[in-house]
Amino acid sequence: MSQQTLPTLKGIREAESLIRESVHLTPVHTSRQLDLLSGSRLFFKCENLQRAGAFKFRGASHAIRRLAAVRDFSMVVTHSSGNHAGALALAAGIAGKKCHVVMPDNSPEVKIAAVRAYGARITFCKPTLQAREETTQKILHLEKAEFIHPYDHPYIIAGQGTAMLELFDQMPAPDCIVAPVGGGGLLSGTAIAAKSLSGKLKVYGAEPLGADDAYRSFHSGKIIPSLKPETIADGLLTSLSDLTFKAISTYVDDILTVSETAIIEAMMLIWSRMKIIAEPSACVPLAAVLEHPELFSNRTTGLIISGGNVDLKDFCQFLNKLQLTGK
Amino acid sequence: MSQQTLPTLKGIREAESLIRESVHLTPVHTSRQLDLLSGSRLFFKCENLQRAGAFKFRGASHAIRRLAAVRDFSMVVTHSSGNHAGALALAAGIAGKKCHVVMPDNSPEVKIAAVRAYGARITFCKPTLQAREETTQKILHLEKAEFIHPYDHPYIIAGQGTAMLELFDQMPAPDCIVAPVGGGGLLSGTAIAAKSLSGKLKVYGAEPLGADDAYRSFHSGKIIPSLKPETIADGLLTSLSDLTFKAISTYVDDILTVSETAIIEAMMLIWSRMKIIAEPSACVPLAAVLEHPELFSNRTTGLIISGGNVDLKDFCQFLNKLQLTGK
Repeated sequence: MSQQTLPTLKGIREAESLIRESVHLTPVHTSRQLDLLSGSRLFFKCENLQRAGAFKFRGASHAIRRLAAVRDFSMVVTHSSGNHAGALALAAGIAGKKCHVVMPDNSPEVKIAAVRAYGARITFCKPTLQAREETTQKILHLEKAEFIHPYDHPYIIAGQGTAMLELFDQMPAPDCIVAPVGGGGLLSGTAIAAKSLSGKLKVYGAEPLGADDAYRSFHSGKIIPSLKPETIADGLLTSLSDLTFKAISTYVDDILTVSETAIIEAMMLIWSRMKIIAEPSACVPLAAVLEHPELFSNRTTGLIISGGNVDLKDFCQFLNKLQLTGK
Repeated sequence: MSQQTLPTLKGIREAESLIRESVHLTPVHTSRQLDLLSGSRLFFKCENLQRAGAFKFRGASHAIRRLAAVRDFSMVVTHSSGNHAGALALAAGIAGKKCHVVMPDNSPEVKIAAVRAYGARITFCKPTLQAREETTQKILHLEKAEFIHPYDHPYIIAGQGTAMLELFDQMPAPDCIVAPVGGGGLLSGTAIAAKSLSGKLKVYGAEPLGADDAYRSFHSGKIIPSLKPETIADGLLTSLSDLTFKAISTYVDDILTVSETAIIEAMMLIWSRMKIIAEPSACVPLAAVLEHPELFSNRTTGLIISGGNVDLKDFCQFLNKLQLTGK
C-alpha cells in the first residue's frame, strides 16, 4: 500500500458511494434517560449494528474495492485479533476474494469463530507485534495477495469516515462529536468528515487511561506509543500510526481519557437503558461525556458506538468478579 | 373495568391513532445469520426498544387514554412484579395521573427501581395472588383510582395489538407471526390484528414448557391455569384470563412450547448476533422457530421481541452457574 496522504471530504464521499450497497446504513438511537443523566442531547450512531458487528466493515470494504480497481489479486491478508479480521473476512467474501488472517494464539474464541464463519483462513502466531508482522510477511511472499492494514491507510480512514457522513444527516446539527481512539482510523475519518462539514463543531477522541497513547501523543506533538496498554476496551489497545497521528493533530480538538470504572459504568448504562449490546471500546465515548460534563452539558452531541462484539461468557465472568471484589 | 368483549381490528386501529404520539414506532431488525440458521426469513419487531423497555407501554397508555375520556380519576392502580408496573407508571406520569403499584416483596430490584424512577408509589405485599388482590382492593377503597389489569381488558389487548399493525407495514407479507404468551394480552391483540389483516397467515403463541397453561388450555378447550409455573422467562408466568383465552381460541393457530435450554440458546443468539438486549420472555418466539423448523422453513415470519428489561447482574450469575454445572 502506497499513497499516504490523508483523505479529504471528497474522498470520504467517494468511499460512501462505493460501499453504500454493501454496508448497513446503521440507525441512530437516543435515550431520554441518558439525556437526563448527562444533561446533554445525545445521538448514538449504532455501528454495533453494522455488518460483522463493527464500523471496521466500512474501511475493509472500501479498501478492497479501491485496490481491486487498480490491481489484480485473489487474496487479502491482515493481522488482527479483533474486529478488523472479521470485517475483512466478510468484505473479502463479498468481493469474491480469499482472505487470510494472522491471529495471535491468545485471541478470544468468539473472534476466531467469527473469522472462520466468514470463510477466512487463519494462521496463528505468538501474541507479539513482531510475530504478527513476520508471519504476515511470509504469507505475502507465498501468495498473490494484498495486505490490508487495520487503520494505517487512506482508504481505510476514508471508509471509516463514512459513518460520520451518515450521522450528520441523521441528527440535528451537532455541537460535538465523540469517537473512540485506538489505532486512530475511525477517529481520523470521523474528524476529517466532521470538520469539513462544519468548522464550528468540536471533535473529541475518547480513550482509556490505561492505553492513553493518543492523549500523550496529541499533547506532546509527537507519537508516543503505548508500551503496556491495559484496558477492558480491547479494541483500543493499538497505538497511532504516522498517518492517523497527522489526522488527529490536524482535525481533533482534544483527547479525553476515562477510567476503567467509567467505561464499565457506561457499558452498563448502554446495555440496560438503551437495550443494545456495545463492546467496551464502544462505550468509551459515553464514559467521556459523563466524565466531562463541562464540555457537553446543554450541547447536542453525536457519539459513535463503534462495535458490539462481546464474548458474553467472558463478560459475565468479569462482571461477577467485579461484584465479588465489591467494586 | 367493565365491557369484556374482544376488540376488533377497528378498535386496534383506534388505539394506534390514540397512542401514536406517546409510543415509539419501534424498528424491525433482521439478521442474515439467524436467517441462515433457521432456514427462514425472520423479521424481529423490537419492542425491547419501546418506552419503558416493553410492549406493555402500548396497552397501559391506551387504557389510561380511554378511561380518562369517560371518567374522572386522579390515580391508576395495578399489581405487577414486572413490565406492566413500569409501563403503567410511565404512562400515568405522561397523562398527568398518579400511579400506585402493588408489588410482591420478592420483586427484582431492577423492576422496583424502574417503577420508582417513573414516579409511582409502591406498596409491597406477600408474593401470592391473594395478597396482591387484597392489597390492591384496599388501595382502591381508599383512593379515587382506576384499576388497570395487565392483560384482562379489551383496552389493554387493543393497545398491545398496535405493535402488529406497525409490523405489518414494516415487513414483506408475512406467512407466520409468533408472539410470546403469558397472560395472553400481547398474543390476543397480535392475533386479532394479524388475522384481520390477512386470513392466510398463521399465528403462533410461543410458551415455555414450564408454564404451559396456554398450550394445555388451547388443546383442551378450557382454561387450565398454571399451578406452579417455573421458567427463566419471568414475564410469562401468568395464566390466561377468560378474555384472552377467548381471543386465543378464536384467532391463534397453535401454541408452541419450548424448553428452558432452547430459551437460553435463543437469548444468546439474539444478544450475540443481533446485538440487542432481549429479556428471556422475548426470546421464546425465536426458540419456537428454531425448535419447529417444519413450520417455518422457507417462510417469512414476524416475531415480537416483547421486552428488554433484564437485571444484568442476575443474568450473569445465572449464566455462570449454567457453565459451572456444564449445561
